[in-house]
Amino acid sequence: MTYWTLTESDIDRIAIGVGILGTGGGGSPYLQMLIAKQLLREGKRIRMIRPADLDPNAQIIGLGGIGAPTVSIEKMEEGFEGVRVLKAIEAHTGRKVDAVLGDEVGGGNGIYPMITAAHLDLPVVDADGMGRAFPEVQMTSFFAYGQASQPAALSDADGNTLVITQAKTPQMLEKLMRTATVAMGCTACMTTAPMTGDFVRRFGIAHTTSQAWTLGDAVIRAREAKTDPIAAILAEAGGTFLMTGKVTDIGRRIDGGFVRGTLTVAGLGADAGRTLVIDIQNEYLVATEDGKRIAMVPDLICIVDSETGRPIGTEEQRYGLRVAILSLPAPALLRTDVALALMGPRAFGYDFDFVPLGQSTEPAPVAAYRADHSLTPAS
Amino acid sequence: MTYWTLTESDIDRIAIGVGILGTGGGGSPYLQMLIAKQLLREGKRIRMIRPADLDPNAQIIGLGGIGAPTVSIEKMEEGFEGVRVLKAIEAHTGRKVDAVLGDEVGGGNGIYPMITAAHLDLPVVDADGMGRAFPEVQMTSFFAYGQASQPAALSDADGNTLVITQAKTPQMLEKLMRTATVAMGCTACMTTAPMTGDFVRRFGIAHTTSQAWTLGDAVIRAREAKTDPIAAILAEAGGTFLMTGKVTDIGRRIDGGFVRGTLTVAGLGADAGRTLVIDIQNEYLVATEDGKRIAMVPDLICIVDSETGRPIGTEEQRYGLRVAILSLPAPALLRTDVALALMGPRAFGYDFDFVPLGQSTEPAPVAAYRADHSLTPAS
Repeated sequence: MTYWTLTESDIDRIAIGVGILGTGGGGSPYLQMLIAKQLLREGKRIRMIRPADLDPNAQIIGLGGIGAPTVSIEKMEEGFEGVRVLKAIEAHTGRKVDAVLGDEVGGGNGIYPMITAAHLDLPVVDADGMGRAFPEVQMTSFFAYGQASQPAALSDADGNTLVITQAKTPQMLEKLMRTATVAMGCTACMTTAPMTGDFVRRFGIAHTTSQAWTLGDAVIRAREAKTDPIAAILAEAGGTFLMTGKVTDIGRRIDGGFVRGTLTVAGLGADAGRTLVIDIQNEYLVATEDGKRIAMVPDLICIVDSETGRPIGTEEQRYGLRVAILSLPAPALLRTDVALALMGPRAFGYDFDFVPLGQSTEPAPVAAYRADHSLTPAS
Repeated sequence: MTYWTLTESDIDRIAIGVGILGTGGGGSPYLQMLIAKQLLREGKRIRMIRPADLDPNAQIIGLGGIGAPTVSIEKMEEGFEGVRVLKAIEAHTGRKVDAVLGDEVGGGNGIYPMITAAHLDLPVVDADGMGRAFPEVQMTSFFAYGQASQPAALSDADGNTLVITQAKTPQMLEKLMRTATVAMGCTACMTTAPMTGDFVRRFGIAHTTSQAWTLGDAVIRAREAKTDPIAAILAEAGGTFLMTGKVTDIGRRIDGGFVRGTLTVAGLGADAGRTLVIDIQNEYLVATEDGKRIAMVPDLICIVDSETGRPIGTEEQRYGLRVAILSLPAPALLRTDVALALMGPRAFGYDFDFVPLGQSTEPAPVAAYRADHSLTPAS
């Protein structure tokens, strides 16, 4: 089998990349990065697998944190939440899980499944259902293209665990997951219904962990070469530069298990005199300038430190930060009518249709994938 | 085996009795009564079994509605909610359920398990965990004496179903159940962890369906004989008459899935000049007169129509109703320290200890129990 076995240096690159792809949400990658690196130091291994290499009949589950990022940076995980939801799904289906993935590559959730995979020595699929982060459970390419609403499972840091054995719609699954997460203190680990390898190959957004690595690597190389990290990100991701500026206002509240609010950035330098206003629901949703929408979901609105390229989460925003605002094109699987119904502007309550910015790209797998016959299957 | 096979006339009596024992909550018995009688007319049977006759190793689950009574009188059940939670527990435990009971005999929940039992031809145990109604899941003698917090299950009228596979405390179970119920539209069917026959024999409050029948029968006989139904209730239940009066104020709101509020009753006739104020959380909790508490949880505060003895739920209260207010002694199993910690005044946020009113009684099984060899076990 062909794997990409991660090193600590890979995790560093991925942590930057998933931060960029997180569009402000998906949870902070920082804690996940520390846990993943610690597990590698303890001798655990994290093996990525390309979706094309999956057995079509494999049983695969998505794993990730659910809740408000502002809470998850203060309320620590216990570490085995993912193992508990995986075991709950195995018990309910009577079938072993063969591999895990992140429903959401963006933010800490881009690393999250690696923790459980390291504990159980399972491979992690280099694919996700968003190519970014989204605030709600059902906002994935998997749900857009027919993933079942059940069984799904949730577990918190105390060990409280539940299995949703029937949810009549993906929206009801989100509602049940969200209210249970609030009862659990606003953060938990979740999984949605098991998928086959074939389904993930067809409807997963391929090589998004590779994409995160590539973005992170570009930022690190730009820092080392003292070149512009913003230009490096745009060169890799095919995005659009929107503005450089200073955060002049941030309104942020926890509402129904989400972080909601508005961010205002005043242009600096060549952008002096411009003002961008960005709506937030865990992620950056819509960027508006002078009443005109210039970027919107599902395209990615990414905010990074304008000097270092460090991605800045919605929960980290504060007055005075110097930021660059970019738009990266959403994956092609998210720009279809069926996907836009789940995660286009109207799915967030806006009364306008999606207007794309830029051409969708197809991320390639990193060069580090190679056949490794020394790896024996986990016992 | 010895069974009490219910007739429509039995259901009429039980519906009055569970209304009295409901202390204002447990849901309106009216809809449950109609459904149960309809099932009998369709040829289904409802068989009660005494706890003493249970196989010590039998697997038994409690079934009941959870939510706000004000919602449940308007948002109809679909009818098979109980079957779904029972099947979810069977699937999770890998074991058939042998009998059901109501965790809560008070209100509609005193009839609720009979519906599922009729559909599946399972016996219903003549015992519950409250001898009354309480607003929260963990407020039962079963939890007071060691029932596990998991597995528990919940299903709504649309079929949405979940299984709580681990809850670290009964209070966390209540929290998860309650928030999921709110997500389901404020009413659902619930079951707590399966219990053995031995456990139910030791920690169930025995013969409370019989007690409900006896109270309802006393009211109906008093109506027929044109004697005082209030005196008849007190004679059967060993309670204390508090006051007769007119409802002069009712404040009621839905809050976190509960009905909360305050009821004020002004004395009439021999009680003219007196005023009772009664706190509500789904049920009548504490009765106060001139700043002095005269009755409190877990003792039962029962409010009935002063002419007919018809029990009046918190959701039915309105200005001008002529009512009699009674206190019935809580079962002995609820007056212990371990039970009072779960359902005494302090468990409801009050800063005073329980002061009992009257002697606890032990309800006897109805005379209708008899060995019935014509009944074959359900296939």
